[in-house]
Amino acid sequence: MSDAVVLLSGGLDSTVCLGLARQEGFTPWTLSFDYGQRHSAELASALAVAEALGVPPARRRVVPLHGLFSGSALTGDEPVPLDRSWDQMGQDIPSTYVPARNLVFLSLATAIAEPLGIGDLFIGVNALDYSGYPDCRPEFIAAFIQAARLGTRHGIQVHTPLAHRTKAEIAALGHRLGLPLELTMSCYLGQRPACGRCDACLLRRHGFEEAGLVDPLPYRV
Amino acid sequence: MSDAVVLLSGGLDSTVCLGLARQEGFTPWTLSFDYGQRHSAELASALAVAEALGVPPARRRVVPLHGLFSGSALTGDEPVPLDRSWDQMGQDIPSTYVPARNLVFLSLATAIAEPLGIGDLFIGVNALDYSGYPDCRPEFIAAFIQAARLGTRHGIQVHTPLAHRTKAEIAALGHRLGLPLELTMSCYLGQRPACGRCDACLLRRHGFEEAGLVDPLPYRV
Repeated sequence: MSDAVVLLSGGLDSTVCLGLARQEGFTPWTLSFDYGQRHSAELASALAVAEALGVPPARRRVVPLHGLFSGSALTGDEPVPLDRSWDQMGQDIPSTYVPARNLVFLSLATAIAEPLGIGDLFIGVNALDYSGYPDCRPEFIAAFIQAARLGTRHGIQVHTPLAHRTKAEIAALGHRLGLPLELTMSCYLGQRPACGRCDACLLRRHGFEEAGLVDPLPYRV
Repeated sequence: MSDAVVLLSGGLDSTVCLGLARQEGFTPWTLSFDYGQRHSAELASALAVAEALGVPPARRRVVPLHGLFSGSALTGDEPVPLDRSWDQMGQDIPSTYVPARNLVFLSLATAIAEPLGIGDLFIGVNALDYSGYPDCRPEFIAAFIQAARLGTRHGIQVHTPLAHRTKAEIAALGHRLGLPLELTMSCYLGQRPACGRCDACLLRRHGFEEAGLVDPLPYRV
């Protein structure tokens, strides 16, 4: 049984990713980022999820990155878009895109993993339901693996078990694995009850509905 | 004339890189990292060099990354090797290698550059004189450019004007460009006068000697 670093935002996808890493037999370390996200309340969810899944404090890490990211609705530079239609969401890169976020997160995860002798990372990127973010594409992950292979001592394997799953499949997986989905937070506004109007809330609710499951989170609308 | 982000450690190579970016007509922003390096005194050199080259405070940035990197002689986890021969330096990855450092630095530079509308980065990596660091190889830089192209909105161009220069050529370039090389710091121990015994001191002195130039830095031995 080997160790793996799992990027854990505290949302539905990263929580299911953590559950899958564990199911695959990895001992997970969780890595979260406090990057001045508007929804920094998700960090409390990440902590609660990690605790509920038995990840001990010594294997949990929150890296502060304040003031680094900008130019995104998620860092407060623009309003978070609400009540968008599926058509609108499918078009180009949304304003909630955070420049180079996954590039930075994966790089920092690699820097932390290598001295620990850890060669596996898990990230809950998803290319199907939400293709607007360039850094969630399989092509990007493959290119990152290659850059890390050439730029470090041993390279790193990046696991993306959710890459080709729909949100409904992810919700169903989380349910089947018995994960504490009530502890997660997806809302871009960081609201609890969740706003129900941002892209993240809309996609999540739609996923649970499609899966025929009840989302354990309360919503405002 | 467009802007460029120049990674500036405060050493000889990054200072010459900054001079070359300016000479090529770019308006430089400087980016330095306070990562708990043993030789954090180099940050004062970075500041002094940036000031001397007229980079205004609004275009200088120091990113704190404390406690992130480990497993290196430069982060204090092992002693810095001293008095090594050229043969020893040429063999495998030295203990001063910092895991994933340039991967992290370039990723963070990309995250900072993109919202500013900056599409060019300069980094003073050098593949000739010191091939022990995997993240100084041209293959790594090429792979990083590809990962950034796929993982961001616009991608980034990474300029490595020193990639194929010897240390003697770099010293000569710095001299020819009239750069304030007396302000730089290369010593891995962060000493001034420089220790004269770490790999960085040995390579630097040898470079100036080969170029027939006087290194303006004082050395202990």
